[in-house]
Amino acid sequence: MKIHNFSAGPAILPQEVFREAAEGVLNLNDSGLSVLEISHRSKAFTTIIQEAEDLVRELLDLPERYEVLFLTGGASSQFFMTAMNLLDPEDVAAFVDTGSWSTKAIKEARRFGQVEVLASSKADQYTHIPKGYDVPERARYLHITSNNTIFGTQYQEWPDTPVPIVCDMSSDIFSRPLPLQRFGLIYAGAQKNLGPAGVTLVILDPDLLGTVRDRLPTMLDYRTHIERDSMFNTPPVFPIYVSMLNLRWIKARGGLSAMQERARKRAELLYAEVDRNPLFYGPVNTEDRSLMNAVFVAGDPDQHQEAFLEVCADAGINGIKGHRSVGGFRASMYNAMELDSVQLLVDVMQDFAKKRG
Amino acid sequence: MKIHNFSAGPAILPQEVFREAAEGVLNLNDSGLSVLEISHRSKAFTTIIQEAEDLVRELLDLPERYEVLFLTGGASSQFFMTAMNLLDPEDVAAFVDTGSWSTKAIKEARRFGQVEVLASSKADQYTHIPKGYDVPERARYLHITSNNTIFGTQYQEWPDTPVPIVCDMSSDIFSRPLPLQRFGLIYAGAQKNLGPAGVTLVILDPDLLGTVRDRLPTMLDYRTHIERDSMFNTPPVFPIYVSMLNLRWIKARGGLSAMQERARKRAELLYAEVDRNPLFYGPVNTEDRSLMNAVFVAGDPDQHQEAFLEVCADAGINGIKGHRSVGGFRASMYNAMELDSVQLLVDVMQDFAKKRG
Repeated sequence: MKIHNFSAGPAILPQEVFREAAEGVLNLNDSGLSVLEISHRSKAFTTIIQEAEDLVRELLDLPERYEVLFLTGGASSQFFMTAMNLLDPEDVAAFVDTGSWSTKAIKEARRFGQVEVLASSKADQYTHIPKGYDVPERARYLHITSNNTIFGTQYQEWPDTPVPIVCDMSSDIFSRPLPLQRFGLIYAGAQKNLGPAGVTLVILDPDLLGTVRDRLPTMLDYRTHIERDSMFNTPPVFPIYVSMLNLRWIKARGGLSAMQERARKRAELLYAEVDRNPLFYGPVNTEDRSLMNAVFVAGDPDQHQEAFLEVCADAGINGIKGHRSVGGFRASMYNAMELDSVQLLVDVMQDFAKKRG
Repeated sequence: MKIHNFSAGPAILPQEVFREAAEGVLNLNDSGLSVLEISHRSKAFTTIIQEAEDLVRELLDLPERYEVLFLTGGASSQFFMTAMNLLDPEDVAAFVDTGSWSTKAIKEARRFGQVEVLASSKADQYTHIPKGYDVPERARYLHITSNNTIFGTQYQEWPDTPVPIVCDMSSDIFSRPLPLQRFGLIYAGAQKNLGPAGVTLVILDPDLLGTVRDRLPTMLDYRTHIERDSMFNTPPVFPIYVSMLNLRWIKARGGLSAMQERARKRAELLYAEVDRNPLFYGPVNTEDRSLMNAVFVAGDPDQHQEAFLEVCADAGINGIKGHRSVGGFRASMYNAMELDSVQLLVDVMQDFAKKRG
């Protein structure tokens, strides 16, 4: 039975990428060596990481001054590294709180500077993206979380701000074109739209750096990785290799505009059913709904929560259970998800309503 | 042509491990899902990371109180994390300097405490392991680098110390049994004897923790990862999976005593030829020679350096060029290397001497 993987992350990647990745594990480009055993200083690997960087630049249409880094430690490490590298103790960083990930970023930033939380949707269980706040010009940056995997919200318009945006884009990077010049720094754990777990992408405008007086540990200073092209120490070779393969796939499928169109079609199909189906509803403010993670709940959870999970499992629909902090259901539909998987989910929802409604 | 991979790291792993890893990329345990797309909270993965930890414990015969963590960032991140987690500013850490990696660890530790370098072989181009120093009882720990990939030295006996040893064991962990009770903390980038690049093993006695007054960023505090079983955030799923497969292989081949015996046989075969062959010599103090990384040089580099690299390449011998800071040759012979690859190198050396000697 084909498994339709709706997991929130690590998440679905294209089948072609899996096949190429497996081939690389056995024999990389007919070299007689596995991608798992090559030196990171070898031509075989420097070619891979360079192509990965080139594809990031091309797909995002990145202005040349930006740096592209492949690090480790996930977005969780960027929560403190951004603040550590950008804030002196008296500096102000502005935040918008849209859920668990924002909250963690705020907590870590407080260790390094003055944090101002401009807006929060916490009182509404994070079911919308706050709007209508003013970003103070004295702030070094405005930090936002572009897509909220747990609560199913996503910025559909970027905030109006006089200062650069620092953005945790872990769960929707490479799913749509971006107005890059508005961002000072973007970070993303790879394991949703970019690649497998184990590599973290950081894109930054180096003009944002250079004011922090503290001397940072070498590995925590962005300048170390800029100067050494992400090769100060051994990088995560295989996660970078698979990310490069996946970026090739995105390019071959038409780039970020095409990814955006795919995402729009998938989300429209599913949300239409959520809104139509008498047994389910979507708790998120319509205009802030995430195209990546559709959160929906059963109107009568006692009767339908477990039963719907069962019919999904029977249909080969995997990873549909909502986050433990929200409950209900969550269909994560990243770049690699084909529309027919979403159609299957919709069919199962309709069938479920017919039999149980 | 079969390629014999003598790279210093990322490095050779068993062919069986490559085959199993490639199968997991296509279809993990017949689940219909790739190991690259499974949730780290899924049973499929928690089973893997638990087996990896169990194998670490079993192979090392680890006393129960020790914690086993799978982190990222490499040994380069442990250089500062050890000091950051173990030292208050007035605390003393003792170091032995055996080369580039020790030097980096010393540099990072100075940011967090008082560093005393008890001994160094720098004046002798790091061609031996210092001995005969006293470790002060007031030190929190003694930091050493067990094996020095660049200079080809290795501790064959552990230092006599009244304080716990903190050890960078990146390049020889799982190559021999260890007297664990003498170590307070062991760290190792995976990419030599453990697995592919992208995961970092930390083994620590939690009694060593808990005195540091500073509040650390969440991701940099060992206690975070202890409390959450290395799952505070998304771990590097695939590097952990392959490490687990490789640990299974080590166990199936007889464990660490068997690995030690394999290493001894390989090293004896190669060093005997280095000592016998009129065109080469080994610069390292005999009793401190590494069983993992055999460093040797041409007596007449102008005539023989490039020529020998060429005959090696012709024979399918890969990664034999010495580190740029030392020159000459380096044959890295990690756990997965079979004796016949070393025999081939010896044959090539003998043939080279016959034709050019």
